[in-house]
Amino acid sequence: MQRILSTELAAHPHEKVLVEGWVHRIRRLKSVSFLILRDAAGLAQVVLHEPGGIQEESVVSVVATVTPNPQAPGGVELTAPEVRVRSAVDVPLPFELHRPALTASLPTQLDHAALALRHPARRAGLAVAAAVTAGFRKALEAQRFVEIHTPKIVESATESGADVFELDYFGRPAYLAQSPQFYKQMMVGVFERVFEVGPVFRAENSDTARHLTQYTSLDAEMGFVADHRDVMAALTRTIAGMFGEVAGRTGLAVPEVPAEIPAVRFAEALRIAGAPDDEPDLAPAHERALGEWARREHGSEFLFVTGYPMRKRPFYTHPDPADPAYSNGFDLLFRGLEIVTGGQRLHRYEDYVAALSAAGEPLAAYRGYLDTFRYGMPPHGGWAIGLERLVARLTGVANVREVTAFPRDPHRIAP
Amino acid sequence: MQRILSTELAAHPHEKVLVEGWVHRIRRLKSVSFLILRDAAGLAQVVLHEPGGIQEESVVSVVATVTPNPQAPGGVELTAPEVRVRSAVDVPLPFELHRPALTASLPTQLDHAALALRHPARRAGLAVAAAVTAGFRKALEAQRFVEIHTPKIVESATESGADVFELDYFGRPAYLAQSPQFYKQMMVGVFERVFEVGPVFRAENSDTARHLTQYTSLDAEMGFVADHRDVMAALTRTIAGMFGEVAGRTGLAVPEVPAEIPAVRFAEALRIAGAPDDEPDLAPAHERALGEWARREHGSEFLFVTGYPMRKRPFYTHPDPADPAYSNGFDLLFRGLEIVTGGQRLHRYEDYVAALSAAGEPLAAYRGYLDTFRYGMPPHGGWAIGLERLVARLTGVANVREVTAFPRDPHRIAP
Repeated sequence: MQRILSTELAAHPHEKVLVEGWVHRIRRLKSVSFLILRDAAGLAQVVLHEPGGIQEESVVSVVATVTPNPQAPGGVELTAPEVRVRSAVDVPLPFELHRPALTASLPTQLDHAALALRHPARRAGLAVAAAVTAGFRKALEAQRFVEIHTPKIVESATESGADVFELDYFGRPAYLAQSPQFYKQMMVGVFERVFEVGPVFRAENSDTARHLTQYTSLDAEMGFVADHRDVMAALTRTIAGMFGEVAGRTGLAVPEVPAEIPAVRFAEALRIAGAPDDEPDLAPAHERALGEWARREHGSEFLFVTGYPMRKRPFYTHPDPADPAYSNGFDLLFRGLEIVTGGQRLHRYEDYVAALSAAGEPLAAYRGYLDTFRYGMPPHGGWAIGLERLVARLTGVANVREVTAFPRDPHRIAP
Repeated sequence: MQRILSTELAAHPHEKVLVEGWVHRIRRLKSVSFLILRDAAGLAQVVLHEPGGIQEESVVSVVATVTPNPQAPGGVELTAPEVRVRSAVDVPLPFELHRPALTASLPTQLDHAALALRHPARRAGLAVAAAVTAGFRKALEAQRFVEIHTPKIVESATESGADVFELDYFGRPAYLAQSPQFYKQMMVGVFERVFEVGPVFRAENSDTARHLTQYTSLDAEMGFVADHRDVMAALTRTIAGMFGEVAGRTGLAVPEVPAEIPAVRFAEALRIAGAPDDEPDLAPAHERALGEWARREHGSEFLFVTGYPMRKRPFYTHPDPADPAYSNGFDLLFRGLEIVTGGQRLHRYEDYVAALSAAGEPLAAYRGYLDTFRYGMPPHGGWAIGLERLVARLTGVANVREVTAFPRDPHRIAP
């Protein structure tokens, strides 16, 4: 007999069917018991007269009759079942999965990720992440971007040397890439517009609710831009596409993405957040204040911050031609959290040589990268979105670890 | 003026347009010169009377009139141009890009990847790779698979300890994941069917035309299978979808994927390849012989090899219930090269404990993974496709490095 899914039961009233899945819950009442079966699509109620010793999370195959019952979830239940246990659970579970929320502490959930992720709420967060990445790719392909795959093992600890993981590469040191930045710029020379969805690694020893040592970066880079505003416009279209995909695939209520997301310059952002004029960057509290301001003043869950001082942005950032102490870089805040960093990049070889020399960086470490600009590059820019941060904000969880299947932080490297 | 692409020129006869791109070639003739401009879409011919000193690969903006000319590529050329150089190249190029094939040696190409990848042939290989991954995801989503992202930094050097990269994780050793195998199995407990497109790392010190130390693995895993044949059927549908996407997006002629790919058991494969009965595995020459046999006998570019001895497959492989010395694992050969490994996996906790104990592996190193099976798992299986190998075979190049943007091998870690 061909298996059907729990959500297909209502289309088969009075038929004998096969369903398969996990025992989500056993409810033992006086005269009858209910086995709630969970499969990829949802839940189904099986009426049992003799449940035996079957434990929750066991995997079962159930042949039974679909019987309409307005009280049952989905309007049907499965009666007169033959239950075959495919994998029996014979140890106590560390926590229950059938309550609306997991009651175990987050560390306990993470220790038992294989089990915790089966909870519908945890699972839903990962389904949103899958929809976000699908929407990202779809929106970018519609704008002529081409997918690339770039090295995660690199020769030099460039960009911000301190926070890289070092590894043993056949007896010599190598490093895990902190971002595909250099590679995506190089690939602008090939495809003009490129994107990558992949892991990035940060050896930052900070155990916060918004940092991971490995996270998924949604990177894009595009050539032939006038300046960073073309990049911001492409990003806005992309986020609208991503949110549309999330709504369509998961049913999650997503906020509207304005056709033009409001933007403030960094100096103005400091004033709005009530921060001192000489603050070098936005602290989390400032970001939250800006998020509230954007909602109140513009009815927007999004806010661009532009015009950061050059000294706070990486060496490849393009200065504002009208005021070169400030940059053509931007951040995008979503609900008071920075989820995207981007900007226009330098594109002339001599500008790179000057910027690296000013930063005291050895040119030799950037050889392959600098080749790109020596051999002709158009004005270009791009961005990187932190997947886990975006999904956490979108689903309303407090900690990025709740929407990451197997998070990595300074104290966690398993499972 | 809004930029248009080279491929759009023919739709604008006699109009003044803006095109932008790289100087692919300058042809200086006696009375006239031609600037061949290359953009993301293709090539355009610009007629120049005074080309000046402009060098190839410089980036230019050209405002000119679209003039029909049956001799020109695409049936039009750009006349009366105003050429603005956006980024001037002022050094000699290490090799020319405008010949049908790159004449530089592969190492020279790889040293100058930022330039070499701009060559239409190298670029086409990467466009095929992008179509392959898009097709993979599309085919799997149509079969209810959900995308996942899993850790690339792992605690234990499991699976085949010798070939892993070790890194310094805040003062303790950690390793780069050789595959998402354990994680995708764990996620079968969450979504039933999952896939991941991501980097995997092999510290194998072998400098061959088909090995890389980082490659892109197209992984899938599915629950509630009868045995490995359900996995092979899903894989066959997926490959057909991938090849369809390649043909549709790139125009590459792809071979037909049979509705049922021919399959031979390992022992029979050895006989066909003329290998001794006691050969433990298929050598490259055997794979080539099998590829020729499949084409000759079945008219198929594909061949499944099943029934490998258990001792040659990883510990999580499910044995053939009818003959437990042999496995429910399979390889898929494409044009005489193994591009996929897969199979049915063990799904019962006690089978894992027995298999790991028999292999002399410490159970503690597999704790989080074993949890999965202790808490109920259905029969399941999956596969891993090596992206670069598949694309190399599909495009007919001899070395996987020719279809990898920035390959990594024991002697190459830059650019």
